[in-house]
Amino acid sequence: MKITKTVEEVKRFVKPWKKEGLSIGLVPTMGFLHEGHASLIKRAREENDIVIVSDFVNPIQFGVGEDLESYPRDFEADCQLCRDLGVDLIFNPSPEEMYLDGFHTHVGVDVLSKGLCGKTRPIHFNGVCTVVSKLFNIAEADRAYFGQKDAQQLCIVKRMVRDLNFNIEIVGCPIIRENDGLAKSSRNTYLSFDERKAALIINKALTTGKSLLLSGVHDADKIKEEVTKIIETEPLAKIDYVEIVETNELQPVKQITGEILCAVAVYIGKTRLIDNFFA
Amino acid sequence: MKITKTVEEVKRFVKPWKKEGLSIGLVPTMGFLHEGHASLIKRAREENDIVIVSDFVNPIQFGVGEDLESYPRDFEADCQLCRDLGVDLIFNPSPEEMYLDGFHTHVGVDVLSKGLCGKTRPIHFNGVCTVVSKLFNIAEADRAYFGQKDAQQLCIVKRMVRDLNFNIEIVGCPIIRENDGLAKSSRNTYLSFDERKAALIINKALTTGKSLLLSGVHDADKIKEEVTKIIETEPLAKIDYVEIVETNELQPVKQITGEILCAVAVYIGKTRLIDNFFA
Repeated sequence: MKITKTVEEVKRFVKPWKKEGLSIGLVPTMGFLHEGHASLIKRAREENDIVIVSDFVNPIQFGVGEDLESYPRDFEADCQLCRDLGVDLIFNPSPEEMYLDGFHTHVGVDVLSKGLCGKTRPIHFNGVCTVVSKLFNIAEADRAYFGQKDAQQLCIVKRMVRDLNFNIEIVGCPIIRENDGLAKSSRNTYLSFDERKAALIINKALTTGKSLLLSGVHDADKIKEEVTKIIETEPLAKIDYVEIVETNELQPVKQITGEILCAVAVYIGKTRLIDNFFA
Repeated sequence: MKITKTVEEVKRFVKPWKKEGLSIGLVPTMGFLHEGHASLIKRAREENDIVIVSDFVNPIQFGVGEDLESYPRDFEADCQLCRDLGVDLIFNPSPEEMYLDGFHTHVGVDVLSKGLCGKTRPIHFNGVCTVVSKLFNIAEADRAYFGQKDAQQLCIVKRMVRDLNFNIEIVGCPIIRENDGLAKSSRNTYLSFDERKAALIINKALTTGKSLLLSGVHDADKIKEEVTKIIETEPLAKIDYVEIVETNELQPVKQITGEILCAVAVYIGKTRLIDNFFA
């Protein structure tokens, strides 16, 4: 497995791969890899000749007061996991390598970035789109793999790829959960013992919400109320949002008639966790 | 020569070319091709196996009240010129083909887009960056050719390519002028007989400005004053800006110590013309 910190070296590796006609799968990550990432890597391994994992905590997608500095890192463990999963190349650049002096370019997707997490994280998705555009160009990947846990990100990246005619297929992969239902996240490591237990309320509430919908409740407010009520039973939980949106423009719906995304962001103590379901 | 109006068809042509390892040169234009464009196409023809010309009046780079509707078009003549110059493919999409329903993505370069033309055309360069990003992805070009007449655009596109790691080389080509010195522009067609004569003042003023600099005047204000004074002798001319900026961040300079761009935008009647020199 190759490990590189420079854009130039990735491009040097990629060039002959492309020339040989090998397909390339890219898994963009911020490192501290868990089984959620592993599922993306395994899928990429199955579907491509070459698998590239990027391991980069992208500073420009963090707002002021967010957890950029404390974001968990363990590059050695990441390398071990990637080796075990047959990854061909890990790209682990520094912020200075990604954002050269005089970096002034931004990429973003309007409308879809305004609601949900965009409400409290106004610069987040522009940061994501910008770094992902760079990674697509650097890796020249045929496919890129994103987890459905970051549902809004997945929708935005798909729209960006369509709008800018990137030659890449975006593959969304199911949420991977702990045995007790908590969605896997690098940020789960922030949780204390009590918070870890309290965090279960998120999946519990979403499961109830989904059951309601499947049992025939199509009033979005009713489902949101129920989900909200359940989360509020947990004293350590503080809701950022509970939202039901259609999956094209991610706009709130009243009456559920087509495919929807039900997404929540909840603080457990100081840790902000997100989870969702499509239905 | 192939002519196509759809993204999909361009990609269908490009795929086997890329597979064969052929190099592709892209000349992005808004059509109504003149000798300026021809010089870009000739250069692309010399340096690449395949030459693609895009011929698209990009609506999102025009502001309210600008000349989107009246912008001159002659697709038949464009095709003839391209055929004569050995172009392989003209891409002539509709706005609807380029901007699908639910198009929400934008690309832009801050700082460099603020001054010069960006002052009076605040959305212009975001529109340029967005369409150019699309064209780069659609054509998968190895090189793209831009005229130095649009100097700010050239600097911005170069920065965008660097920042987003596009796998493309931006080739800047010299300004092509009429015999009497007026920079070639599709917009020259707007000029009446008297305006056409009046427009000569632009190149005359810039030539004097350049001579002053080369003769040792390094006070930017002094040169700007002189250029301004000359343009103001022409009653049909109304200055939008006369500016001298350094060529990295396009920020105004007082004392000229390194490479500079001296750029002007001048209304001749209702027609806004731009011209410049690097020194």
